[in-house]
Amino acid sequence: MNKKENFTWQEKLHEVIYEADTPSGKLFDVVLLVFIFLSVIFVMIESIKGLNPWIYDFLFYGEWVVTILFTIEYILRIVSIKKPSNYIFSFYGIIDFLSTIPLYLSLIFVGSGALVTVRALRLLRVFRILKISRYIGEGNKLASALKESRAKIFVFLFAVVILSLIAGTAMYIIEGEASGFTSIPISIYWCIVTLTTVGFGDIHPITPLGQFIASLIMILGYGIIAVPTGIVSAEYSKNFKKVPRVNTQSCYNCNESKHLDDAHYCHNCGYSLNVEK
Amino acid sequence: MNKKENFTWQEKLHEVIYEADTPSGKLFDVVLLVFIFLSVIFVMIESIKGLNPWIYDFLFYGEWVVTILFTIEYILRIVSIKKPSNYIFSFYGIIDFLSTIPLYLSLIFVGSGALVTVRALRLLRVFRILKISRYIGEGNKLASALKESRAKIFVFLFAVVILSLIAGTAMYIIEGEASGFTSIPISIYWCIVTLTTVGFGDIHPITPLGQFIASLIMILGYGIIAVPTGIVSAEYSKNFKKVPRVNTQSCYNCNESKHLDDAHYCHNCGYSLNVEK
Amino acid sequence: MNKKENFTWQEKLHEVIYEADTPSGKLFDVVLLVFIFLSVIFVMIESIKGLNPWIYDFLFYGEWVVTILFTIEYILRIVSIKKPSNYIFSFYGIIDFLSTIPLYLSLIFVGSGALVTVRALRLLRVFRILKISRYIGEGNKLASALKESRAKIFVFLFAVVILSLIAGTAMYIIEGEASGFTSIPISIYWCIVTLTTVGFGDIHPITPLGQFIASLIMILGYGIIAVPTGIVSAEYSKNFKKVPRVNTQSCYNCNESKHLDDAHYCHNCGYSLNVEK
Amino acid sequence: MNKKENFTWQEKLHEVIYEADTPSGKLFDVVLLVFIFLSVIFVMIESIKGLNPWIYDFLFYGEWVVTILFTIEYILRIVSIKKPSNYIFSFYGIIDFLSTIPLYLSLIFVGSGALVTVRALRLLRVFRILKISRYIGEGNKLASALKESRAKIFVFLFAVVILSLIAGTAMYIIEGEASGFTSIPISIYWCIVTLTTVGFGDIHPITPLGQFIASLIMILGYGIIAVPTGIVSAEYSKNFKKVPRVNTQSCYNCNESKHLDDAHYCHNCGYSLNVEK
Repeated sequence: MNKKENFTWQEKLHEVIYEADTPSGKLFDVVLLVFIFLSVIFVMIESIKGLNPWIYDFLFYGEWVVTILFTIEYILRIVSIKKPSNYIFSFYGIIDFLSTIPLYLSLIFVGSGALVTVRALRLLRVFRILKISRYIGEGNKLASALKESRAKIFVFLFAVVILSLIAGTAMYIIEGEASGFTSIPISIYWCIVTLTTVGFGDIHPITPLGQFIASLIMILGYGIIAVPTGIVSAEYSKNFKKVPRVNTQSCYNCNESKHLDDAHYCHNCGYSLNVEK
Repeated sequence: MNKKENFTWQEKLHEVIYEADTPSGKLFDVVLLVFIFLSVIFVMIESIKGLNPWIYDFLFYGEWVVTILFTIEYILRIVSIKKPSNYIFSFYGIIDFLSTIPLYLSLIFVGSGALVTVRALRLLRVFRILKISRYIGEGNKLASALKESRAKIFVFLFAVVILSLIAGTAMYIIEGEASGFTSIPISIYWCIVTLTTVGFGDIHPITPLGQFIASLIMILGYGIIAVPTGIVSAEYSKNFKKVPRVNTQSCYNCNESKHLDDAHYCHNCGYSLNVEK
Repeated sequence: MNKKENFTWQEKLHEVIYEADTPSGKLFDVVLLVFIFLSVIFVMIESIKGLNPWIYDFLFYGEWVVTILFTIEYILRIVSIKKPSNYIFSFYGIIDFLSTIPLYLSLIFVGSGALVTVRALRLLRVFRILKISRYIGEGNKLASALKESRAKIFVFLFAVVILSLIAGTAMYIIEGEASGFTSIPISIYWCIVTLTTVGFGDIHPITPLGQFIASLIMILGYGIIAVPTGIVSAEYSKNFKKVPRVNTQSCYNCNESKHLDDAHYCHNCGYSLNVEK
Repeated sequence: MNKKENFTWQEKLHEVIYEADTPSGKLFDVVLLVFIFLSVIFVMIESIKGLNPWIYDFLFYGEWVVTILFTIEYILRIVSIKKPSNYIFSFYGIIDFLSTIPLYLSLIFVGSGALVTVRALRLLRVFRILKISRYIGEGNKLASALKESRAKIFVFLFAVVILSLIAGTAMYIIEGEASGFTSIPISIYWCIVTLTTVGFGDIHPITPLGQFIASLIMILGYGIIAVPTGIVSAEYSKNFKKVPRVNTQSCYNCNESKHLDDAHYCHNCGYSLNVEK
């Protein structure tokens, strides 16, 4: 506490930008999220045709404002960390870079502006503002359940793919081009549409034999929907160990961000974590 | 028992209108439900075009009869309770008000008559006539399971929204306007239609790459349907504490309505509950 | 065993017709099922237009042959049982009657012949030929799980109906006739089609607001599909008591048919069960 | 080890072709899978119309090259095993034969070339290259869960079929030809499309009564989707015994292939398994 004034401006900036537990850090993240949300909305509206021309002009300038703000934020994130590579090559670092660059690219390559939708991934930062430990816990459980079921899900998906290949070819031979089954890949596409019970109806069997085979595929699809559900259900019912409460403090030195609530030093590099406190 | 004649007409009216355990209270609730059901049917039939003109006339008068009856009931509910605000701002109080007002409004604003469908919510009173304690118990279990899964469901829905944003933009870029993907919001709408396996077929991919991406989205949607099911399943398998049996007795004084079967005084304000007994 | 010749022809006929454990009884049931299956196929083929005229002639005579055989069987069932009312008003007795009568009715009322499809219910007799005790056990478990979940399922279905009423009316007001939402009942029908993720696509929203509301309905439908699944899952996971092995022996006196494998006398009326043994 | 040179060329070839644990055996399986994958892709591309003519020429020669390689492999598999009948009539033996023969048949019968898609089943060999014991374990669990639920699933499917028969006929009578319900089999097909929540939309009810019945079928279908899911879930939640680790070693003498990791002699015929080691 009494050493507060010893911290450099970089360390203080680091705490504001990378953490969400202090008032200033939380405010920064909320403002950032508002801009991310705005930029996603801008891209969506821009794709709608036939609006009043001044809207497109407004969106054009709005996107440039957001992009420049994101560029400044990106530079600040790099200068406020001891080892910039820890941020640049992290998950969020890459997303931040990909969210900033498309508009600059659109000056060179026409049409690449639509790539800014990758900014939607930045919305994942919302979890930093919410009671993070709780959602990280749930996310970990979900990830853990999926990881445990990896082999089961692989076996299951493989069965679906083999089934689609065989059934798709059968439908191609039976129905032919008149019903829209113009090639084997199209038939396989139809087969996946049917097995997953989506059923667009753009292609559908018209011969009695084709409709009979389609009925079998549908009942089969109805049956196998039970398999992944059963797997996840059973996996979820197991007991998971309690995850300890972590907060959003992030080390100035190595950028490690999952610290326990009562940690004073980074468990990764030993650097002090107490800047404001 | 011997004090029966001591109760005022308001207290007796209160028991008839607000409770469903005495013969007269049950009869009142059954008659009320019949009128609610009729009024919902009236609104539905009125929206059908091309019927015989006398039907519309009949429905017009029928709706006014029901509305006037509801108005009388609403006034009686207010006068038969000690603190009217306890009823007026309760869940049922607000629904009752919203169910009565639209037809009066339609005299001023044309077209607002369709809002009477909010009356459908009044059908929830059916639970008062059935063995209430059982259904309240089940409803509580359901609500409790959903409340416990809140964080899990939030994480899950957030993943669905982010996925729809990314995949919707990808489909917009790949398919373009020829297939009906005329803007990013429309593409996101298509993405939700597909991920939830609804599949209307009003918009569907026609390019090979679009169909390939669509197949991936469908298999993904098929897989993630397992997640909420697994969550609710696991949550339901846990043991819930037995809920004690409650009845529909409602306190004349404070309108508290969840009393134990053997309660003689309101557990909220201490007022006597034994009017008819 | 040594009393075999003491049994009357009615008692012997009873054993052949009503039981499936003796060779002659099993043969009878297999032959009967073949005829039931044939008669169902006949009705299905007859409904197809544009076939060769001799096929319709053949089906016409085939149906009459089957109907006359069913009539004879029905009479034999009545004469071979001590108290015919035990059979006539049982589940199978009513189905057998309804399966036999339509063709006779078609002589009087044109078009009632299609009602013979009720014969499909006679296919339920297939369980008598298979290892019955096993399937009765599974059927009982299923019925028991559904019975236990009765209150839960009622609450759930009620929520779906209320939701469809409200959302259907909202869509009717928002979309109007141009999109096919021509009346509130049609909108409710669309709402059920969407909530259950069937999605025919005959009606679909075209306004942005309508598509937004539709997206919310779909995600909601996707979420609530988890509820009945979770309920049945949890119900199934409970332990069920072992069901004792029963066979298809049926009492000549009272027609009670669920006897234990080692029973010698009817547990209902005390009449001897050992005819052939 | 010191007896390595005692093994015949047939025994060495057997180890390369039939096993996947030695480096040479693994290489052989990887190369084989690449060719299987290529041949499946060839068949798929060939079915697409309107490509550049040289592509069809390339595919024609490519398919013949693959077929000849498969023929050589098939012959080697037969000569390198002591009792060829052990391979020829095994699951993989039959698939390998069916994968090789169609192109030769196409020289005689035009159009039979499309049957080569049965080669897709050869992709199941991918499990031999992956950590086999793990996937065999998962596959066994899945098969075991399905086998345990056999009676339940039969009862369930039977209920779906009876329901489709009855509801299909009802819809045929109610809707008639104007809506596309041109015959009872077509109506049953529509009923399966609806019950499984696929909903193509090629046929859909247009009369109010038909839409009402359709709504009931949909809600019912929505409800019964819960049944198989619940069954598999409950079955999966049970504990399964650990499966011992097996590898892909395959006996030269009897072709038995599920040996424990530390086995030195075939547990089926006692023949030595140690060829390279």
